Amino acid sequence: MEKNSFNMISLPENSPHKQETVCIFGAGDFGRSLGYKMLQCGYSIVFGSRKTKTSSLIPKGAEVLHHEEAAQKADIIIVAIQRQHYNFLTKLTEVLHGKVLVDVSNNLKINQYPESNAEYLAELVPGAKIVKAFNTVSAWALQSGTLDASRQVFVCGDDNKAKQRVMDIVRTLGLTPVDQGSLLAAKEIENYPLQLFPMWKFPIYLSIGLSAFFFIYSVIRDVIYPYVYDKKDVSFFIAVTIPNRVCPIVALILLALVYLPGIIAAILQLHRGTKYSRFPDWLDKWMLCRKQLGLVALAFAFLHVLYTLVIPIRYYVRWRLNGYVISQIKANRTDPFNNTNGWISDSYVALGILGFFLFLLLGITSLPSVSNSVNWREFRFVQSKLGYLTLILCTAHTLVYGGKRFLIPSMYKWYLPAAYMLSLIVPCTVLVIKFVLIFPCIDRPLTQIRQGWERSPKDSKHSCYNDSKSAV
Amino acid sequence: MEKNSFNMISLPENSPHKQETVCIFGAGDFGRSLGYKMLQCGYSIVFGSRKTKTSSLIPKGAEVLHHEEAAQKADIIIVAIQRQHYNFLTKLTEVLHGKVLVDVSNNLKINQYPESNAEYLAELVPGAKIVKAFNTVSAWALQSGTLDASRQVFVCGDDNKAKQRVMDIVRTLGLTPVDQGSLLAAKEIENYPLQLFPMWKFPIYLSIGLSAFFFIYSVIRDVIYPYVYDKKDVSFFIAVTIPNRVCPIVALILLALVYLPGIIAAILQLHRGTKYSRFPDWLDKWMLCRKQLGLVALAFAFLHVLYTLVIPIRYYVRWRLNGYVISQIKANRTDPFNNTNGWISDSYVALGILGFFLFLLLGITSLPSVSNSVNWREFRFVQSKLGYLTLILCTAHTLVYGGKRFLIPSMYKWYLPAAYMLSLIVPCTVLVIKFVLIFPCIDRPLTQIRQGWERSPKDSKHSCYNDSKSAV
Amino acid sequence: MEKNSFNMISLPENSPHKQETVCIFGAGDFGRSLGYKMLQCGYSIVFGSRKTKTSSLIPKGAEVLHHEEAAQKADIIIVAIQRQHYNFLTKLTEVLHGKVLVDVSNNLKINQYPESNAEYLAELVPGAKIVKAFNTVSAWALQSGTLDASRQVFVCGDDNKAKQRVMDIVRTLGLTPVDQGSLLAAKEIENYPLQLFPMWKFPIYLSIGLSAFFFIYSVIRDVIYPYVYDKKDVSFFIAVTIPNRVCPIVALILLALVYLPGIIAAILQLHRGTKYSRFPDWLDKWMLCRKQLGLVALAFAFLHVLYTLVIPIRYYVRWRLNGYVISQIKANRTDPFNNTNGWISDSYVALGILGFFLFLLLGITSLPSVSNSVNWREFRFVQSKLGYLTLILCTAHTLVYGGKRFLIPSMYKWYLPAAYMLSLIVPCTVLVIKFVLIFPCIDRPLTQIRQGWERSPKDSKHSCYNDSKSAV
Repeated sequence: MEKNSFNMISLPENSPHKQETVCIFGAGDFGRSLGYKMLQCGYSIVFGSRKTKTSSLIPKGAEVLHHEEAAQKADIIIVAIQRQHYNFLTKLTEVLHGKVLVDVSNNLKINQYPESNAEYLAELVPGAKIVKAFNTVSAWALQSGTLDASRQVFVCGDDNKAKQRVMDIVRTLGLTPVDQGSLLAAKEIENYPLQLFPMWKFPIYLSIGLSAFFFIYSVIRDVIYPYVYDKKDVSFFIAVTIPNRVCPIVALILLALVYLPGIIAAILQLHRGTKYSRFPDWLDKWMLCRKQLGLVALAFAFLHVLYTLVIPIRYYVRWRLNGYVISQIKANRTDPFNNTNGWISDSYVALGILGFFLFLLLGITSLPSVSNSVNWREFRFVQSKLGYLTLILCTAHTLVYGGKRFLIPSMYKWYLPAAYMLSLIVPCTVLVIKFVLIFPCIDRPLTQIRQGWERSPKDSKHSCYNDSKSAV
Repeated sequence: MEKNSFNMISLPENSPHKQETVCIFGAGDFGRSLGYKMLQCGYSIVFGSRKTKTSSLIPKGAEVLHHEEAAQKADIIIVAIQRQHYNFLTKLTEVLHGKVLVDVSNNLKINQYPESNAEYLAELVPGAKIVKAFNTVSAWALQSGTLDASRQVFVCGDDNKAKQRVMDIVRTLGLTPVDQGSLLAAKEIENYPLQLFPMWKFPIYLSIGLSAFFFIYSVIRDVIYPYVYDKKDVSFFIAVTIPNRVCPIVALILLALVYLPGIIAAILQLHRGTKYSRFPDWLDKWMLCRKQLGLVALAFAFLHVLYTLVIPIRYYVRWRLNGYVISQIKANRTDPFNNTNGWISDSYVALGILGFFLFLLLGITSLPSVSNSVNWREFRFVQSKLGYLTLILCTAHTLVYGGKRFLIPSMYKWYLPAAYMLSLIVPCTVLVIKFVLIFPCIDRPLTQIRQGWERSPKDSKHSCYNDSKSAV
Repeated sequence: MEKNSFNMISLPENSPHKQETVCIFGAGDFGRSLGYKMLQCGYSIVFGSRKTKTSSLIPKGAEVLHHEEAAQKADIIIVAIQRQHYNFLTKLTEVLHGKVLVDVSNNLKINQYPESNAEYLAELVPGAKIVKAFNTVSAWALQSGTLDASRQVFVCGDDNKAKQRVMDIVRTLGLTPVDQGSLLAAKEIENYPLQLFPMWKFPIYLSIGLSAFFFIYSVIRDVIYPYVYDKKDVSFFIAVTIPNRVCPIVALILLALVYLPGIIAAILQLHRGTKYSRFPDWLDKWMLCRKQLGLVALAFAFLHVLYTLVIPIRYYVRWRLNGYVISQIKANRTDPFNNTNGWISDSYVALGILGFFLFLLLGITSLPSVSNSVNWREFRFVQSKLGYLTLILCTAHTLVYGGKRFLIPSMYKWYLPAAYMLSLIVPCTVLVIKFVLIFPCIDRPLTQIRQGWERSPKDSKHSCYNDSKSAV
């Protein structure tokens, strides 16, 4: 929104329109910053404070009065003090009656108090119209005008008119009010600025865990093993070769884990014969972070692509290729072209490219602005159909990469299979079960269940399901 | 919007505020799902049904009454039944008078009925305030809370207060209401969830057609021809080599087709001497899907880039390069560096990189959130100026790639020119006509026409236009 | 928003609902286009004009009357005439009393008049309710329906009801109204369509300047120097080699310049002992365009990646590598593998890949739709923590690339150091100062200052700051 950014600079100079008077309780940093910003935008500001001595910190042009006097001067009172000092407000109940009280407070921890600060305020001053707002904006951002992230101001309140008036102030300050409904939403709004990527935690920890495991696994197989047996020092593999082995593995496993909960849910629904009983908690949480899992997988796939494309630039690779040519010449021999190798090399590369391309498409459609502009049917089509196609292509890419290698005993160093083989377990499981689930005799009851149909207890529960399983 | 996702989980546990009572007609899957969700968010729910026996499917805490009794209990009635059963509502006209009736229905086909379901409902129950909402949300999504795509709920209605109340409910459920104006919009809102990428159909079919044609064309020239004449089996070209020939061709043609309709429109306007007569239907439709055409072209260009960058990793390419070195050594000869080849190879690569880079910029600015934050002038600058620059760079890239090859007779296998030559026809045509159109003596009248000026019939229509044409 | 695009096509055919009558003053291009569009959407249109003769340009179905008569017929009057002709409206003050007057005008230059056109209109017709709207939409877009960029219509006005009515019209036309508050915002709204990437100007000019300097610098060192001394013509370096030297340098410098103003601000705040005095103007502007600086840097980094990845495809590189192999064979010698070189080559590549990956993440989070869905804490985490990590990785990438080369005298052609050395000055400075600033004895007072604390004049200003400086 470049539109608004110049707003911030240009407004101070030309604000001939005088806006209404707003009272701010509390002359702490946030109160002062907000007052400064509002003065710039043409409001008259009166601070309500215990000591009415104007300090140098109070923005120029603002008045400082005792709480009661200040409250009388304005219709809208912004309460910029901490929750633990709210109780003095009970003495002002009369003056505050019918006025709009804006709660801007934040807590230090998520769910610190049983009720939200705004609801607590509403209990203390029952006659006032409480509106929650501004808590998502930082004092620093208000003053400096660098509001890149936090243009959105969540506003909620039970009185619609009061909410509208506060939203008008928000808009005048160059911010975007987002109506969040009744005061019930205050708790979430207060928790919101304390979060640090809550939905991303599980995917990121999982991917770090997987990466660490496969990194150590590959170091043992590819660095320590040759050092122990051949005294060959290939420690520099840690920089590019090993990461390029770990990244595709983690990406493939995470991608498969995006589709696994859907399959578990389908099996649960088939087993229970209804969709109306709740899933276990872990499954619910897993399903809610599928998007994040997929995006982390995409990040690893992207790293894999970059690591792969730089291969021919690496000194080690050039040195090895040169050595190969020189050895051929010294042996006075030219390797003939192997058509099978040509096919394997090219189809493996092609599968990878197509898989990555579809994966990227999935990632783009999960951008908020893109997913908002598609309807439910389109979103399902992309995320489900294209998603499974991506999984199939990436799994095939890994399978063809392996080729017949899994048959060669020398690949099992210290009896450890190559890391890529481990990576195939989850995706192959997911694909096989999914393949079973699209069999008509399983798909039909599942669709019925999802449309709200319930199996009566008399139904022979397992008939069809078992049949098809034995068929596979 | 991670903000809202935790909303879904946390709300059930802490909803001390009691919301109003809402009545739901119809206890089908969608009605029950909506009821379940609303109960979670603190609403009291009463179902209106033919049979008032509480089935196990009805969410716990909801009441089930006969339609009439249920309707009396609430101010807002959600009609979650199918259109063909609406007529029983005429009997309830009296009870429903002045109440808010929310139509949530969807159809099975686009434009199934002459008027929208909501308008039909408004005719049946003239005293009620009809609001269309919730039809874009799926029952499954409501229950499971996995609302990635469909947070947006389009709301329309003729009564503003009724609409606001429904929008408040939408917000409380953690969804985003989007006001679509009067009930007139109901038809579109009902068609919306039935669409599957309507604007993408033409570009995608076109690109599939072009890809198929050029794929077969290249297979004939590059796989079948050497097999027939040299008995050389290069069938593995199908995996990477041929796709990497098809992708840039389709990308270039599609990119040119983005700019062709604008040029046809300009010629039409010049010819007619006015901008106020409608374009033919096909041109209108073509112009409306230019963005999608461009994005499909970008996808093909992206694939071309990936296919090109993996070239040095391919087994075939390494084998051929090794063979070249070995043959040089056997002949005891070192090819001297050819400066012209250096220039051609590097400038061809550089043009491709710059063209792709600008193409990507165009793609990024067409993301909804980015294009919303630029103004009309900026958007025109990017899409028109940068767009033509991209087309010029990509065409030049192809021309330099060809180099002097089009003069070599051996390139015309079976009298077929190389595929890249065919790909140059459309972009070169577009660029030449555009070049003619920016001649001042053509640009001036065109600008006038676009500013609303009309050529009177007496004007000598073709003078300037013809002059410049002969000049070129 | 595909949703709305079909709107434009489908509406004309089925608009049974008759909307209200709207009057348009002025039958120029924009007035006619708007009238045409509104007729399509079901409104009755009456044009107010000096000459009431219906010309062929007036859309079919619209009436043309004298201004006074036309104004009487409608409640909403759209003033589609230029500001300099507004004064005739004073004669109509009586008729226009209480009516909604929509100002759609634009100026030719930014800040052309002291007050906005809408405010001027409000002065001329004091009894009317002035609403500013539609100025961001072009006449051409309204008619052709190709509204890709400009769906957003900024609306402002002092009368809320009048504003709501205009916003309803906007919505009916398939556009998105954006409420900008009171008429105070009219000036910005009028300036908005005249801007051409105002925040991008400085970053783009700066990057062009830097690119030009380093391009010429590199041409002198890498093309002219070998030509003068060795008579070697490597002019083709201009296409790929030199750009691939310039791009990473400019990217790194620009990235460092993103973090420099924050550091200068911190030093200023430490020096002044308060955050309440304004920064110098240039620093404020610099801080506001950091996002744009970063994105331009990302563009250069992206070009660098592409230029690097095509290296092995280039004719020159292949020729040189072949020559190297052939020379080795002729000398009957095989270079042994150098482990240090393996480490340097691979770690340099790995640092670059990780740096670019994080850089891309930063770019994605600065997309409007993504940055709107993160809170202030998350945004700070990404932009500050990840941002510095990116800068560290990219600087390390450049340092390792250089390796020990800066010690070799032959690298200083004509006493000019290699360009990459110059590029390290700014990022290293930034990183060193940042490292000093996170020392606890400096970080603590800085945090206090940023939380609103002020150093009283008696405080020994420099104690801690100086201490730590000498310590470093």
